[in-house]
This record gives sequence, C-alpha cells and structure tokens, in this order.
Amino acid sequence: MDASSPKDFASRLSTVADEAEAVLKRLLDDAPLSGEIVRPERLLAAMRHGTLGGGKRLRPFLVVESAALFGVAQAGALYAGCALELIHCYSLVHDDLPAMDNDDLRRGRPTVHKAYDEATAILAGDALLTLAFDAMARTDVHPDPAVRSALVLELARAAGIGGMAGGQMIDLAAEGRFDKRRLDNKEIATMQAMKTGALIRFACRAGAIMGKADTATLARLDAYGVAIGQAFQIADDLLDLESDAATLGKAAGKDAAAGKATLVATLGAPGARKRLAELVGEAEAQLAPFGAKGDILRATAHFIAERRA
Amino acid sequence: MDASSPKDFASRLSTVADEAEAVLKRLLDDAPLSGEIVRPERLLAAMRHGTLGGGKRLRPFLVVESAALFGVAQAGALYAGCALELIHCYSLVHDDLPAMDNDDLRRGRPTVHKAYDEATAILAGDALLTLAFDAMARTDVHPDPAVRSALVLELARAAGIGGMAGGQMIDLAAEGRFDKRRLDNKEIATMQAMKTGALIRFACRAGAIMGKADTATLARLDAYGVAIGQAFQIADDLLDLESDAATLGKAAGKDAAAGKATLVATLGAPGARKRLAELVGEAEAQLAPFGAKGDILRATAHFIAERRA
Repeated sequence: MDASSPKDFASRLSTVADEAEAVLKRLLDDAPLSGEIVRPERLLAAMRHGTLGGGKRLRPFLVVESAALFGVAQAGALYAGCALELIHCYSLVHDDLPAMDNDDLRRGRPTVHKAYDEATAILAGDALLTLAFDAMARTDVHPDPAVRSALVLELARAAGIGGMAGGQMIDLAAEGRFDKRRLDNKEIATMQAMKTGALIRFACRAGAIMGKADTATLARLDAYGVAIGQAFQIADDLLDLESDAATLGKAAGKDAAAGKATLVATLGAPGARKRLAELVGEAEAQLAPFGAKGDILRATAHFIAERRA
Repeated sequence: MDASSPKDFASRLSTVADEAEAVLKRLLDDAPLSGEIVRPERLLAAMRHGTLGGGKRLRPFLVVESAALFGVAQAGALYAGCALELIHCYSLVHDDLPAMDNDDLRRGRPTVHKAYDEATAILAGDALLTLAFDAMARTDVHPDPAVRSALVLELARAAGIGGMAGGQMIDLAAEGRFDKRRLDNKEIATMQAMKTGALIRFACRAGAIMGKADTATLARLDAYGVAIGQAFQIADDLLDLESDAATLGKAAGKDAAAGKATLVATLGAPGARKRLAELVGEAEAQLAPFGAKGDILRATAHFIAERRA
C-alpha cells in the first residue's frame, strides 16, 4: 500500500477493523465457560451488544501497526489489541450508565443499559474488563510469558486509577458534581491524558514491548502515543462542537451543555486546531528513525487529527 | 501452632488478616499514580472505603496456607492473595449498588455508594478490579513471569463470565427479574459455585501454582477448594437465615425476602447442615497426602463450615 494515499490508508484501517471484529467475536463466542456452569446468556448478549458491530477499532490498529515496525507477527499483536479494545468497550458501557454520563445512544444504537438494564450493564462492563486481562495473559498474544506479564501490568496501569478510571473520576468532578472548582488548561490536558490518552499511549507502547524494542525506541513510541492521544481528544471535542446528532450517532453539543472540561472550550476552535497541527508534527518527529516503515503511523496521526466522524 | 486448637487457628487467621490489611493499605497508598496526573482523591478514598478496615481476609489466608504446603515464601503468596482480595472487594462494591442488591450497609458501615455516590462506587469497583490484575502481574508475587501469567489468567477466569460475574448474573435472574423460571437444586449449586466458589477455588489453586505442584496435587487443592467453596456458601445462607442484623452487620433474612435462590431454602436447615458435614469430609480427604502439613487447611474447612459470623 501507499500509506500517504488516503484511500489506501482507509482500506488498511478497515481491513484491520474487520480482523479485530472477528477476533472479538471469537473471544465472546468462545468465552471461558468451561466445566459445569449455567450459561449466563443475558450477560453474554449484553457483552456482545457493548463490543461488536462497530467502531474504527483504532486501538487494535495502533497495536498492530506499532508492532509491525518491529516485525512482530500480526496475529499476536491483533490479539493484544483486542484485549485492549475490550477495556475500551467496558469503559463505554459503564460511562453511559445513568449515574455516569447518562447516555441512551452509542453509535446510533441503544446503550447497553437501555437495551438490557442497569444491573446487566454494570456486570457486562465488569465481565468485559475481566475478559481483557484473560485475553492478554493467553499465549495467543505472545509465546514469552515475560512479555505477557509486562503487557498485563501496563494495561492495568493505563486503565486504572492513574489512567482511564482516574481520568473519568476527575472529569465527573470537573462537571461540578463534587466541588465547584473548575480545572485550568493544564489540568484539563492532564485529565484527558489519563481518561482517553492512556489507552492510546498503551496501544503504541504495546507494539514496542512485543517487539522487545530498546529503551530509546520504546520512548519514541511512547511520545508518539502521547501526542496522538492528545490529538484524538481535541479532535473529538471539536467534533462534539461541530457535528449534529445524525453524523455523530450521539447527542451533539452535549459536552458544552454538561459543562464538560475541554480544551476546545478554553482555547476556542481556532486555537484547538492550531494545537492539533502541532501535535501531528510532534508525532511525526518521533517516527523519523523508522523511515518509510513509519508511513502508516504517520498517516494515522493525520487521520486522527483530521477525522470528521 | 497447634492447628487443631481453635484458639491457635483463630490467632493464625487473625495474624494473616492483619498482614493482608497492611499489604492492601500499601497497594492503595502507593497506587500507581506516576507521571503527571491529577490525583483522583475521591476515587482513592472510595477504593479505601471498599477495601480496608475489616473482613476475615479468608481468600488471602487460603492462598498463603495453600502456598505454604509447597514451601512457597509467604510474602509473595500474601501479595497474590491481596490481588485476589481486591477482586472480592470490587465485587462487594458493585453488588451493593442500587441496580444490583441495593444494600446500604456492609460490615455495619455505609456501603460505598451511600458514603460517596453511585458514579464513584461504579468507578471505585472498576479501579479495584483493574488494580487486582496490576498487583498480580508484579514481581512481588513471584519472580517467574510464567507463574504470574498463569495466575492472571486463572484469576480472570475465576472472576469473569464463567465464574463470579456470570454467577452474579444468574443469581439476579433467579430473583425473577428477567424471567419467571426458578432454578433447580443443581442449578443453584452451580450458580453458587460460580458466584462465590470460583474465587475460593482459585485461592487454593493459586498456592499450588506458585508452588509448581504436579497435576495430581493441583487437582487435590482444586477439589479441596471446590468443597470449601460450597461449604462457605451454605454456611453463609444458614447465617442469613438465623442471624439478626446486629451480628451480621447487614440486613438479615434479606435473601429469603428477595426470593434469592439458596440451597438452605430448598434443602431446609437440617438438610443444609448435613451437606455441610459431607463437604468438610470431602475437603479433609483431599488433604490426606499432606499429613500434619495439612492441619491448617483442615482447620480452615471446619472454620468455614462452623463459623457463626
């Protein structure tokens, strides 16, 4: 493929998304239900509802493409990417709950607690979160248990108190639920780096870990991940501001209505676009040593910053 | 100690509980909050509320004592046991939620969503679940990454769709929330083996895995864990039937009021007590090859079956 061709890039992204969908479907169809059990069919159905049938699968794509830099076989990287995707999916199921962001729609479909009920949605999120670590510890990811242990540890850090879960807590607090203090720009960026950035950063690090990259090279993938993670969030906030509900498949302008802390709200749209361009530059700079091998990740940075949906 | 002395056993259980409390406190005080972050203090406080200050710490005790059969150093086994305990604690936080069992009290204190709020309780459970896998993947547990990977995988199986989370789903369904069909005795036993038994069984297997036991020996610890897991649930249901709220620290007779599926409800209290005695016998039989080394686990089986709180 010619990674600088938008059409070729879209085709590659779509191919990996299809492959990820197949792995996710298999992970749920062959859910670990061995021995004598009563099959919790309702829970499995809710987990499928929250996982299958949509999404760009950007996180699995990032694991696959960062691993490809190091010649890692795609099957294992895709499996690791799908473990990560399960974490992303659980977080959407829980974030949509009435006590959290109270969303009825996700990608144009009813959210899990609307399609089922709150108890089932809470359990489905819990079970997806648990299945993520199950999947990441399997030999399907990598034959070396040291690599699997490292991936489990880093995934837990990215998803936990110092990452996604902590960031979601701070985001809820920033809505003024628990105190009245507003976050400043630096705190908003930090909150977003935790809430959204940490999983994207992990995706990029995961490829380097699987490829047993040296420390300096791991640091480059890390910095690339940080930059595109920030870009992702700013692009998302711009989309929320500009899109209508039909395009986005969720209620638009909702962030502003909820008083959500975003950089777009404090920098304004032109300032946010300028920051986006800087971040793409930073991401590209990290890829310099990889030459042409880095083309897909370069194109990914542009895609993330410039996406319209 | 003389494990057949109830006083010595209680003292040993209490010592390990104190040690587990200290490790859990350290896991939360030193929560992985590295790099530039905004500390999610409210979330940390809710996680502490849901974890510290109580409980017999039976699961860490089982990991420590089953590991001791194989001469495994206590520090690593205790760490693994505390990772498991975090899973147990998350499940209590989520099970208490209004959409689930809707409990206001736990061990005589307000549940996490009463002390904080629902969103914080959901996130605290998520973060505890995530921290469990973080802890289990650390070298503190075991120097061999193959052992850590195996423990992560088995913990995820025990906690997930085919274990605790699946069992909780079936238990909710058995209340008649989603369909009217009642579970038969066999299905109730299976549901309980998933909901409560799986973590206890894992605790016993974990010691054998850390001790690199052969397959036949692992199977003995497994069967011991299955038996005491069933005994634990029956004893719990008997307690619910017989205790008043003051002793138990939670609303008593609540299971019957909610139409919960229990073996005590279908076998009657005398039938349930007979089954308890059989299960202790089964557990003891599995320990035969260990001779006097198995005394603490023998005493544990009796303790579980005969506990009054």
